[in-house]
Amino acid sequence: MAANNEFVGGKVMTTLYQHGTLALLVPGLFTGTQTVGELLKHGDTGIGTLEGLDGELIIMDGIVYQVNAMGQVRVVNADETVPFANVHKAHPQPKIAVEDASSDALKQIALKELKTENLFAAIRVDGEFSQMHTRAVLPQTKPYPTLAATAEGQHEFNATNIKGTIIGYFSPVIYAGAVAAGFHLHFLSEDHVMGGHILDFDLAKGNLQIETFDNFNLHLPVHDPDFLETKINAKQAMRDIAKAEN
Amino acid sequence: MAANNEFVGGKVMTTLYQHGTLALLVPGLFTGTQTVGELLKHGDTGIGTLEGLDGELIIMDGIVYQVNAMGQVRVVNADETVPFANVHKAHPQPKIAVEDASSDALKQIALKELKTENLFAAIRVDGEFSQMHTRAVLPQTKPYPTLAATAEGQHEFNATNIKGTIIGYFSPVIYAGAVAAGFHLHFLSEDHVMGGHILDFDLAKGNLQIETFDNFNLHLPVHDPDFLETKINAKQAMRDIAKAEN
Repeated sequence: MAANNEFVGGKVMTTLYQHGTLALLVPGLFTGTQTVGELLKHGDTGIGTLEGLDGELIIMDGIVYQVNAMGQVRVVNADETVPFANVHKAHPQPKIAVEDASSDALKQIALKELKTENLFAAIRVDGEFSQMHTRAVLPQTKPYPTLAATAEGQHEFNATNIKGTIIGYFSPVIYAGAVAAGFHLHFLSEDHVMGGHILDFDLAKGNLQIETFDNFNLHLPVHDPDFLETKINAKQAMRDIAKAEN
Repeated sequence: MAANNEFVGGKVMTTLYQHGTLALLVPGLFTGTQTVGELLKHGDTGIGTLEGLDGELIIMDGIVYQVNAMGQVRVVNADETVPFANVHKAHPQPKIAVEDASSDALKQIALKELKTENLFAAIRVDGEFSQMHTRAVLPQTKPYPTLAATAEGQHEFNATNIKGTIIGYFSPVIYAGAVAAGFHLHFLSEDHVMGGHILDFDLAKGNLQIETFDNFNLHLPVHDPDFLETKINAKQAMRDIAKAEN
């Protein structure tokens, strides 16, 4: 394997790795096409979902946690598979202290720090949240329904005064279809009992870290017959992603 | 540097490398942000343009040829720079014999061979063309105009009964914005006197080779202030790309 980060002229080249393409989830391509073990070769930090759209993954320090639709949290095994996931090798970044910020306010702070909306970036927030509102999708079985139908059956979770970590990404809008444009954030509580795909939150106090990427490496499931054969309606896919991921 | 192609489980992993993102050409970001020497570390075959949108590049066997707006062909030096280019490490592929095919017919044959519209693929055709119709854009100087304005000043070239090579790519429609969706093909005559961005052709007799990619590696010009600061109107970019690249 090539390393995910390369030294070029003494400078670290950073790479955001993605297995799968978001638009392919829209018609229901939820088959796991990469093992978690293989995924972790490309990074130690990230987000994703398991085969069948089984819950929300949050990856920290090389450990993959799943928050399932019952709200339960467990560590995922290396031989389980993902239809879609993002990972990167995290490098320590300056910590930006933030207090009393809503999810919208935190996103604005992150964009101001980024100084651009044209790069892919990783977001990490460690802190205390006065409220955290998440969701996790229900696992589906074959024949898989569409992403939109799956989103209708998701479960939501609420917590107050909870410590934990946000992991996720900012992606420029021109890559919508491959990725969820804008912010895509997952949460895991410090005690590993609550988490999921973030709907909204209020941060009481915490540290924000941002890392930008030189490279976006899109790895496609080239051996999955369903992936190869499915016809994508690009416009419909964009609309359904916007609906399901927000 | 990591190799552009990796062996995984005894199998070659193929990668399409791209420097820059097509949507950023739309508002006129034509500054060269990668040297040709650096580009060639990621592949020996491909297409692109030089700083200022100076002509059409076609890359074969590690040599970069430029067709300028006067229709002249020359070999490009390693220290010249590109705002946008695609390269890959070409592997020998089965040769598909094709006779009497228009450009539209050849694209249909390529899609039939691909058996999918969801993967990135390289296209190469070596053959005799009863007619070849190309264009090359005029070099621009700062302050750069928009891509649409540049396309209006392009020069077109026609040749009949000409031998040569087509190099280019097929890209799935969901990645429009990052890339030109569909086919994006350049031509160079065997005697190196005619070429450019292909508008249409008739192939008398030739061989088609197709190579699909496991990975699409998008490398962004993260140190270019103009790239970082420019606001992209994603919808407008899509429309202007469709106009300028076809």
